[in-house]
Amino acid sequence: MEKIKIAIVGATGYTGSELFRILYNHPDVSIVAMTSNSQAGKSFADVQKQFSGIPAPVLIPHDEVQQYHPDVVFLALPHGISMKYVQQWQEAAFKIIDLSGDFRLSAPEVYTRWYHKEHCFPEGFRHAVYGLPELHREAIKTTKLVANPGCFTSTSILGLAPLMAHQVVVPQSIIIDGKTGVTGAGAQAKPNTHFPVVNENFTAYGIKNHRHTIEIEEQSSFLYQKEVRVQFTPHLLPVDRGILATIYARPLSGTSQAALQDLYREFYKNDSFVRVVNTLPTLKGVRGTNFCDIYVDFDERTGNILVFAALDNLVKGAAGVAVQNMNLLSGLPETTGLLSLPLQP
Amino acid sequence: MEKIKIAIVGATGYTGSELFRILYNHPDVSIVAMTSNSQAGKSFADVQKQFSGIPAPVLIPHDEVQQYHPDVVFLALPHGISMKYVQQWQEAAFKIIDLSGDFRLSAPEVYTRWYHKEHCFPEGFRHAVYGLPELHREAIKTTKLVANPGCFTSTSILGLAPLMAHQVVVPQSIIIDGKTGVTGAGAQAKPNTHFPVVNENFTAYGIKNHRHTIEIEEQSSFLYQKEVRVQFTPHLLPVDRGILATIYARPLSGTSQAALQDLYREFYKNDSFVRVVNTLPTLKGVRGTNFCDIYVDFDERTGNILVFAALDNLVKGAAGVAVQNMNLLSGLPETTGLLSLPLQP
Amino acid sequence: MEKIKIAIVGATGYTGSELFRILYNHPDVSIVAMTSNSQAGKSFADVQKQFSGIPAPVLIPHDEVQQYHPDVVFLALPHGISMKYVQQWQEAAFKIIDLSGDFRLSAPEVYTRWYHKEHCFPEGFRHAVYGLPELHREAIKTTKLVANPGCFTSTSILGLAPLMAHQVVVPQSIIIDGKTGVTGAGAQAKPNTHFPVVNENFTAYGIKNHRHTIEIEEQSSFLYQKEVRVQFTPHLLPVDRGILATIYARPLSGTSQAALQDLYREFYKNDSFVRVVNTLPTLKGVRGTNFCDIYVDFDERTGNILVFAALDNLVKGAAGVAVQNMNLLSGLPETTGLLSLPLQP
Amino acid sequence: MEKIKIAIVGATGYTGSELFRILYNHPDVSIVAMTSNSQAGKSFADVQKQFSGIPAPVLIPHDEVQQYHPDVVFLALPHGISMKYVQQWQEAAFKIIDLSGDFRLSAPEVYTRWYHKEHCFPEGFRHAVYGLPELHREAIKTTKLVANPGCFTSTSILGLAPLMAHQVVVPQSIIIDGKTGVTGAGAQAKPNTHFPVVNENFTAYGIKNHRHTIEIEEQSSFLYQKEVRVQFTPHLLPVDRGILATIYARPLSGTSQAALQDLYREFYKNDSFVRVVNTLPTLKGVRGTNFCDIYVDFDERTGNILVFAALDNLVKGAAGVAVQNMNLLSGLPETTGLLSLPLQP
Repeated sequence: MEKIKIAIVGATGYTGSELFRILYNHPDVSIVAMTSNSQAGKSFADVQKQFSGIPAPVLIPHDEVQQYHPDVVFLALPHGISMKYVQQWQEAAFKIIDLSGDFRLSAPEVYTRWYHKEHCFPEGFRHAVYGLPELHREAIKTTKLVANPGCFTSTSILGLAPLMAHQVVVPQSIIIDGKTGVTGAGAQAKPNTHFPVVNENFTAYGIKNHRHTIEIEEQSSFLYQKEVRVQFTPHLLPVDRGILATIYARPLSGTSQAALQDLYREFYKNDSFVRVVNTLPTLKGVRGTNFCDIYVDFDERTGNILVFAALDNLVKGAAGVAVQNMNLLSGLPETTGLLSLPLQP
Repeated sequence: MEKIKIAIVGATGYTGSELFRILYNHPDVSIVAMTSNSQAGKSFADVQKQFSGIPAPVLIPHDEVQQYHPDVVFLALPHGISMKYVQQWQEAAFKIIDLSGDFRLSAPEVYTRWYHKEHCFPEGFRHAVYGLPELHREAIKTTKLVANPGCFTSTSILGLAPLMAHQVVVPQSIIIDGKTGVTGAGAQAKPNTHFPVVNENFTAYGIKNHRHTIEIEEQSSFLYQKEVRVQFTPHLLPVDRGILATIYARPLSGTSQAALQDLYREFYKNDSFVRVVNTLPTLKGVRGTNFCDIYVDFDERTGNILVFAALDNLVKGAAGVAVQNMNLLSGLPETTGLLSLPLQP
Repeated sequence: MEKIKIAIVGATGYTGSELFRILYNHPDVSIVAMTSNSQAGKSFADVQKQFSGIPAPVLIPHDEVQQYHPDVVFLALPHGISMKYVQQWQEAAFKIIDLSGDFRLSAPEVYTRWYHKEHCFPEGFRHAVYGLPELHREAIKTTKLVANPGCFTSTSILGLAPLMAHQVVVPQSIIIDGKTGVTGAGAQAKPNTHFPVVNENFTAYGIKNHRHTIEIEEQSSFLYQKEVRVQFTPHLLPVDRGILATIYARPLSGTSQAALQDLYREFYKNDSFVRVVNTLPTLKGVRGTNFCDIYVDFDERTGNILVFAALDNLVKGAAGVAVQNMNLLSGLPETTGLLSLPLQP
Repeated sequence: MEKIKIAIVGATGYTGSELFRILYNHPDVSIVAMTSNSQAGKSFADVQKQFSGIPAPVLIPHDEVQQYHPDVVFLALPHGISMKYVQQWQEAAFKIIDLSGDFRLSAPEVYTRWYHKEHCFPEGFRHAVYGLPELHREAIKTTKLVANPGCFTSTSILGLAPLMAHQVVVPQSIIIDGKTGVTGAGAQAKPNTHFPVVNENFTAYGIKNHRHTIEIEEQSSFLYQKEVRVQFTPHLLPVDRGILATIYARPLSGTSQAALQDLYREFYKNDSFVRVVNTLPTLKGVRGTNFCDIYVDFDERTGNILVFAALDNLVKGAAGVAVQNMNLLSGLPETTGLLSLPLQP
């Protein structure tokens, strides 16, 4: 079989670099182009020194990607920038997997409300498919534009989906207490990611208005077929990788731990990367992998449902699910190149 | 003024060692005895090497404490052990500050239900005062037995107290998502505190049945004057010190951020160690201090009250509040010896 | 081609678990048996929960390994235990890769001097080949017993080998300041690996008499063809994985950075896993991989040669080099199954 | 006694903030001014939020300090900036403790060679006293300008001083392998202090030309009364605070551990903040304190002297020793306000 030719646009950030790490060992892929506007002309290993000695294309400007005739282009660019390239390449032959937030929401107005900027390519929303394979697998296979989901969203939605699809819980009762590693904030040094600020520390941030809130709500509402609102509170952990979402919800009627675990196992029985586990998930239990681990429980004393979902924000939360989406839209087995095991410890 | 003679029983664990660290610079205290049954006869600095060169009493067995005629005895022993010494010393002249969980609850039966063991000294419950000064200051001043509160409890109750005392929230709506550093688990090496298990990791533990749950509920019910149930979910952070509690509650009627902040500022206006802050609290912002930082907010979109409370589990969560209690029952200004500032970074 | 049947004896420790992680994705290997005397009968994922849902043999006692007719047996057992199984299986058909220290030294007397115990199988020393492929590749291909090297030794020797083989330095001038992550101490919780003891901390340990010292000296002397003594000082880093060795040596005659870098590049030109890099190596630059990164420099001001060598102690320092050795003695390309890239960040 | 009026110029960086932390509880000091050119007009706690609720002067521009008639001014400014204020205030009534590197070296030419810039105030070198109390106590008491030492220098020199003063070692044999926490790099976020770059990582930096090298050499030469050259190699630890220097040297004639320990104990017998300890020092053993812990040993097998010295870079390595110097030049007991104990764990 001929290899799929892929390009990574924005290769020097964390998700771009993680795409390279995964795709380098993907058996059916050939990396034909890697781009960086600020570092064009340099070898990739000069920027990401861990890849010293590893063969990789020299970095080129974003605009030159088309010259390499890729089949699939990964956009690992910031939101607000990404949409310009989607617009520019709307007639191109290649498919696009956009890892930014630019096409994840239902409509340009919603985007403007949560991202506080105008969208330059509103028509894109009509074609974009939300790239969470566990929910939209068939649509992903045939789209030309995948909106790769947010890391907190994937964690939260995978944790909530069975409850939503089966309308088990009170739709306004959902609380998501999210905790993320620092790589979620990107490769750029900022005051709030300075080592002595994060290390030995812990705090909430972006309460009440984090942009993943609306993604969670839209996908939940889609599943529930009714409007859902969630309280989402992100916190910053002093670790590199990983998200744990602790989710609280009130059931509409009586339930039990056994019933809930059955519901989850059934719901995810065909999903290779969701593990419904029987102990509380940990960040290291999924580190470096495309797994999302989920544990569900019911507290009879208080009447609350508790869900714990964990994934690696750079893999299942970004680059890994992007490769999973690439497999789907390329007609490959969904797990190809994604079966590495957790790096623990 | 003559110095208060104090003894630290169980000096070699984390809380015992932290008591020494604080009391060493307390201007009105003389440390007359420090005990350890397993290390008796050794110098304190042989066990806690950071105190090399610092004058301290040689370690003696617990039983010999009375020979040193202390005014106040701190019990820094595990629960189940502590009660035996409280019983043994019930007629002693000294006052006792018990840092274990043995006398924190309302009755022996409640103790047995949550600690899964019989209590050897049920009469102790009649005399014990719950040692959270912000709630029980006057009673602490005159008691002979202080039940020093649990670290998660102090964080949670200080975060909740204004809402409870003013009956602002639905009593069954409270969710406490707690996160603690590893020192909360004590100085003994265990599989779940092995460095590679905790480091770069994060997980929930003890869900549905952590012993601090009942402490939180009893103190909340006392304030609310009605039975309160809470969902309390502890998580283990890869840091040494600090607890952050993220608290969610539904108000009984409409409220606002401004109203809530006023309520909190008024409630704590006479409490030197509670800082009602105007940004999200952090662990390092209170590290090494006796402060509890609290931020309260209201999400108009969802209708939830959000409270964030942070303290150092070894200081305001254990040894610091114990010294605060000692100051109270010794007639000293409450803040004496407790004004060191946060070690940040 | 038929798959190589391998067994992992002592599968539940860190190196056993890491062997599974690597071998699970090795294209030419079938894992036919995994053992644990203390956990026999359990599924592997019950002990190492990160492997939940991953197919693996049920754990069996060490003694039952032969029933599964492995081609290669990895011994991931503590020193002192390992030699008993090497002895017991000396007539077995399979080859053995012993990851303990039991057969790394030149003679039983040397073993006794540094390990303070008698060796039960002195004849084993005649057959064992020291498993550092960069030095002993041809011998490894034909042996039945590989003594897999110590993690500090591999780092130090790979950093020193070109200087030794070419007799560039004063043999008594060598100082190795080693720094290791905590996994080097094993999976068992101990007082000195308790999280609050290691975290935010740093200290030397085992100075003057660490057992890897003699390995370094014997391998150095072999290369130099003259007795070499080194000052080796290990330190404990608050990280999970990785070793960095900072090496100081005095040249016998004038040299330069360029000459040294050429020497190193030439020496390692056929070694896929040694990267002679041109910036200072980092632990994360090799994390999760079989690479050893080396930077060499010369300080004209002081006249000292400086070498910096880094590797992942669980991979190139243990399980990875063991698989590299397995490839060699099985006639496979040396890099098979070992090409995953660094997990950074 | 009237309080000493002090000013902190450059209060918002790590050393400025640490000066405040220490001086706030100093019994004989009144903080009359705190400055920041970029944050002037703000309250200190708005910038360093851990000091929320703590009384402190409003931040003013550096230039306004004189209006507050301080007795002692601490300059916590970057090198290159600091010298301008020393020049500007050369006729002022107050004494200056400069925490930058601007006046630490012997002459302007040496400064220019290592700092790669011209010095604007060469005359300052004539008056400046190197502020390491253990070496220059008497001179500090009477100077108007203290050049507070570099953190690596204090660690190294305190570790070396007895060997130098007694000419025990070969002067060209000294190797200092230094390891520092991240706060040594300052409060400003930079690419190399981004959390995911430092965390779980370790690397050398600034090899062969770190500016503290010349400080170490000049102070060593002063003690030895002969020119000394050292190999100094700094490394970056994934911790906030603390420096450990591992020092290697060859003795001029035979020695022993006992002889060396006696030498060190005798040398430091009048120094309250140097602890000659009998186990290997750790970072946490001195965290938050003004102690420097030193362990000395002799390896009979190799003939090398080994010294391990540890201190907190922000306290004994910066703000603490600055306060110690202030005590000296103010006629106070040297330890006043500096007796807090290690924050461990």
